[in-house]
Amino acid sequence: MKTIQQNFAVQFRYGVHFTEDLFSKDNELFLDVLPQNAAAHQRKVLFVVDKGVADANPTLLEQITAYTAAHAGVLKQLASPVVIAGGEEAKNDPDLLQQLLAAVNDYGVCRHSYLVAIGGGAVLDLVGFAAAIAHRGIRHIRIPTTVLSQNDSGVGVKNGVNSFGKKNFIGTFAPPVAVINDSNFLQTLEDRDWRAGISEAVKVALIKDAKFYKKIKEDAQKLVNRDMEAMQQLIYRCAELHVEHIGGADPFEFGSSRPLDFGHWAAHKLEQMTDYRLRHGEAVAVGIALDVVYSRLKGMITEKDCNNVLDLLQTLGFDLFVPELTHKEQSGQLTIVRGLNEFREHLGGKLTIMLLTGIGAGVEVNHMEEALISEAVKTLKQKHQPQKLSQV
Amino acid sequence: MKTIQQNFAVQFRYGVHFTEDLFSKDNELFLDVLPQNAAAHQRKVLFVVDKGVADANPTLLEQITAYTAAHAGVLKQLASPVVIAGGEEAKNDPDLLQQLLAAVNDYGVCRHSYLVAIGGGAVLDLVGFAAAIAHRGIRHIRIPTTVLSQNDSGVGVKNGVNSFGKKNFIGTFAPPVAVINDSNFLQTLEDRDWRAGISEAVKVALIKDAKFYKKIKEDAQKLVNRDMEAMQQLIYRCAELHVEHIGGADPFEFGSSRPLDFGHWAAHKLEQMTDYRLRHGEAVAVGIALDVVYSRLKGMITEKDCNNVLDLLQTLGFDLFVPELTHKEQSGQLTIVRGLNEFREHLGGKLTIMLLTGIGAGVEVNHMEEALISEAVKTLKQKHQPQKLSQV
Ligand SMILES: NC(=O)c1ccc[n+]([C@@H]2O[C@H](COP(=O)([O-])OP(=O)(O)OC[C@H]3O[C@@H](n4cnc5c(N)ncnc54)[C@H](O)[C@@H]3O)[C@@H](O)[C@H]2O)c1
Ligand SMILES: NC(=O)c1ccc[n+]([C@@H]2O[C@H](COP(=O)([O-])OP(=O)(O)OC[C@H]3O[C@@H](n4cnc5c(N)ncnc54)[C@H](O)[C@@H]3O)[C@@H](O)[C@H]2O)c1
Ligand SMILES: [Zn+2]
Ligand SMILES: [Zn+2]
Repeated sequence: MKTIQQNFAVQFRYGVHFTEDLFSKDNELFLDVLPQNAAAHQRKVLFVVDKGVADANPTLLEQITAYTAAHAGVLKQLASPVVIAGGEEAKNDPDLLQQLLAAVNDYGVCRHSYLVAIGGGAVLDLVGFAAAIAHRGIRHIRIPTTVLSQNDSGVGVKNGVNSFGKKNFIGTFAPPVAVINDSNFLQTLEDRDWRAGISEAVKVALIKDAKFYKKIKEDAQKLVNRDMEAMQQLIYRCAELHVEHIGGADPFEFGSSRPLDFGHWAAHKLEQMTDYRLRHGEAVAVGIALDVVYSRLKGMITEKDCNNVLDLLQTLGFDLFVPELTHKEQSGQLTIVRGLNEFREHLGGKLTIMLLTGIGAGVEVNHMEEALISEAVKTLKQKHQPQKLSQV
Repeated sequence: MKTIQQNFAVQFRYGVHFTEDLFSKDNELFLDVLPQNAAAHQRKVLFVVDKGVADANPTLLEQITAYTAAHAGVLKQLASPVVIAGGEEAKNDPDLLQQLLAAVNDYGVCRHSYLVAIGGGAVLDLVGFAAAIAHRGIRHIRIPTTVLSQNDSGVGVKNGVNSFGKKNFIGTFAPPVAVINDSNFLQTLEDRDWRAGISEAVKVALIKDAKFYKKIKEDAQKLVNRDMEAMQQLIYRCAELHVEHIGGADPFEFGSSRPLDFGHWAAHKLEQMTDYRLRHGEAVAVGIALDVVYSRLKGMITEKDCNNVLDLLQTLGFDLFVPELTHKEQSGQLTIVRGLNEFREHLGGKLTIMLLTGIGAGVEVNHMEEALISEAVKTLKQKHQPQKLSQV
């Protein structure tokens, strides 16, 4: 009997919106992004809020409830906002996923309701996953509250939780209905969270956009001084580059190529090795430094470009070395090198790593030399640890 | 700042293949359906087998291992086949999902490996879900072994497990890489599983294809006598209609319309009310009978057409009445009617139910009258229970 061929395309659309003070009563953006639903006048929503955000904004929960009440004609809050632990804990604790699914069940959140997540990248990843699997997919809105989630993690199509000690072992590709970046949330960030996300902007500038890199360089001091205008520009361009890349190539990553994961093979391993003492963005800064020095040692970029990047990262306040970089396996191999194998395993089959041939110019390679990685680690240690110590 | 618009389409393609004796060494279909992977000569596979199938085919596991060994140049079995409980139990027991995810982790199943499920619809739904969420999606191949899974559940894009006492509360839309229907598996089915899937063919014929309905009617006696040729034709056409429908309309069900769920609002509720004593296909037969009588009571179809359908279902051996149809809530409302609300809730917003205006002609309505449902239940009880008893 002849094979029956299935063949269809699914279209995904969403906007990344920018605003300030989203839940002030006269701000209508939130209403605008909920697609008109012919079936029901009231759109049902359940908010899930990062505890870190709720603690830093003591009136937020009331504000949300007042906002939905003020717009009761079109919005129906199914229950008071659910507050959950923020940070990597959110992705490490399987009970939190169960709690969210139970909330979906208890409060009657259906496939045409909205599960709205407000928080850092970790909370968004967890809530996004719950939304993706409950009822085979509830409509999901992301309101990222950190630099990293506003310029990278929150604007993409992935979610996930950690399992078996592995980052994002479980997750899906599931585009949101909308992303809303409210700059006000950034005010309450600790300095390290203000800073951490900047590394993702450096990352994408380095592989794709020399002009953007130059702009970050010019604005570095402003960024350090928490200049909101400079940060907003950085977030916008970084988000735009991520959105373009995801939409243009292979959104659901069926292939092995992962350009946006420049610097990430080491970063993911370091997050795990440091038991998440390092934030994702901090680990990415180290990972970028390592791959930049490696690119230099391979003769792919000039010494000048290499130093330019390392200087920028340090000006921004990143540590480029952590002791875990030198940890060794019993075999004598650097533990970090196992990150390469894990990255390969996660991708499947062929290792595909992004390196640089210049600022703004990435290139993919399928192999990295252990001896040179080791050399790059030494370079980072020599060059930067003393400097770091003297900063303390 | 201007909204950044994301907009992309993801293309999904897979074939539903038909064969016999898939794992005999000279059958190359299995090799053909694994897409060539430039990255690796050997394609890594892990098989998961329904215990019901393994028990009924005592040499199957050896056969699989011999097959992969014989094709070691292109296939690498990551571990011996994993055998898991079949039937609804597979979807009710959360430990089984955890066991599958642990196997993915332990055996290094990556995003470019294949998780191959062999089993009935329940096992396929469970393994498909595990494949969809591990590493954000492992390549998945379905080898359905029941009539229902070969002609309906296995050829579509949905997976799922039960939670909070609700069917498919958790799941995703995740097309497989390929579906392989091996008719040999059908030999070992119990009569009730041979029969159960036929109701899905009656369903899709009734709403879409009068000619197919006629063919089922003609072949009814052959089907009852387990004529494999007639069954193969039924499976092929039913699978084709399902594949066409899914590919043509709204594959990931973003809207509220669910034509293929004709007869299913009551079926889902009855499965739950009978604690899965009824097979899905058996419950669907009752659900079809109910909605056909309802369509008649509404004056949408003729008495003749109505009786024609009821007769066919009975000839095929289905019970059209189960005592649970008459169960009542404390309020006096038929419990089954709550299935309507749950169906509405699952869809979200607007109730959309398929009814008939003729054989081969479905029509969607947004409301059903409780009094007429109650009347339809009475009709089924009067008309068919005595008949059923006299058959015993
Ligand atoms: N899905 C993706 O595509 C993707 C991409 C990159 C990173 N990520 C993930 O994102 C996570 C990191 O996200 P992150 O850097 O946003 O950190 P985070 O989510 O871990 O948050 C860091 C801390 O900041 C707190 N916080 C958040 N917003 C705040 C605010 N406005 N004011 C005060 N405190 C606030 C949180 O409670 C937490 O304690 C990692 O798990 C990473 O894997 C996902
Ligand atoms: N994903 C979808 O789109 C979709 C659509 C329809 C139904 N379903 C689901 O499919 C499930 C029902 O599937 P089903 O009707 O195939 O029943 P099933 O999977 O429950 O299997 C019934 C019994 O048959 C046994 N069995 C399976 N194959 C056998 C074989 N070849 N020989 C001997 N025994 C065998 C099983 O072990 C089990 O005990 C339900 O959970 C239903 O919700 C899913
Ligand atoms: Zn990152
Ligand atoms: Zn069905």
